[in-house]
Amino acid sequence: MTSPALTLDAVNRMSAAEFSAVFGKVYEHSPWIAERAFARRPFVSRLDLQMALYAVVQGASRDEQVTLLRSHPELAGREAQIGTLTDESAHEQKSAGLDALPPAEFARLAELNRAYREKFGFPAIIAARLNARAAIFHAFEGRLHNDLEQELQNNLAQVGEVARLRLRDLLA
Amino acid sequence: MTSPALTLDAVNRMSAAEFSAVFGKVYEHSPWIAERAFARRPFVSRLDLQMALYAVVQGASRDEQVTLLRSHPELAGREAQIGTLTDESAHEQKSAGLDALPPAEFARLAELNRAYREKFGFPAIIAARLNARAAIFHAFEGRLHNDLEQELQNNLAQVGEVARLRLRDLLA
Repeated sequence: MTSPALTLDAVNRMSAAEFSAVFGKVYEHSPWIAERAFARRPFVSRLDLQMALYAVVQGASRDEQVTLLRSHPELAGREAQIGTLTDESAHEQKSAGLDALPPAEFARLAELNRAYREKFGFPAIIAARLNARAAIFHAFEGRLHNDLEQELQNNLAQVGEVARLRLRDLLA
Repeated sequence: MTSPALTLDAVNRMSAAEFSAVFGKVYEHSPWIAERAFARRPFVSRLDLQMALYAVVQGASRDEQVTLLRSHPELAGREAQIGTLTDESAHEQKSAGLDALPPAEFARLAELNRAYREKFGFPAIIAARLNARAAIFHAFEGRLHNDLEQELQNNLAQVGEVARLRLRDLLA
């Protein structure tokens, strides 16, 4: 992304409000994760901060986890079409070419998104920067065969990967 | 699995050798991960232990990470056929029905395993307990489209999920 890289020392000197402003975006529309992790300062490394954030997610209640999943946009979905994606999500979806899908693929992804949300009640999440477009299509088709508990966990793992990469963009 | 559930208190009283014997299996054939995490005692929760182990993986050198990936068996691969899977892997592969594949699916998975290893130099890893058989096939087909760096990271995330579930089996 375009932000200048921060140093760990600067992070450890941040106020709660500054920390939330910067790291609140690491988990999509979910600044409460950074806010809870703030108590774990000082962070001795980027990995330490990454783990503190991920521990909040893993240790959250099931309702909170589902809320986190529902805070994510669909891939090439409504938010992308009307231009309300976060900068981070727009960048990620573009990296896999999801901003310029041929019409047939766009229609297929819309159908997969719809079927997935209907079955599970939250969107299918995959770290777009870690997958080629074809891999994303295959993954979504396959994951429709899983059960709710499996997909809750698969989605949380993907959310963790997205966060890891966003944190790497922010912090040297 | 069949082990009685441990308490966190018992874990925090373990010697280094005991800790390695119990948690060395959380990451397949890679007790060095538990051995490095031992220094982080005391663990205040299972999640804390899970994160300490995963932080070792994420903080390891790239060579160590590749070695970890190569320590994993293929799904329905040679180790499964000759009976040398770890108990944990045998249990996981069985949960997705990979121990009893129809011949055509067995042949297809063997082909996917071969193609994946030829492209990346390590086996395709997926948390079998988090995926239906059909989802595993789709995932492997899709991941063949990714590049080496993406698959190194996707595999490490899957390894982390496997470890999380193994730890949940061991610790109340």
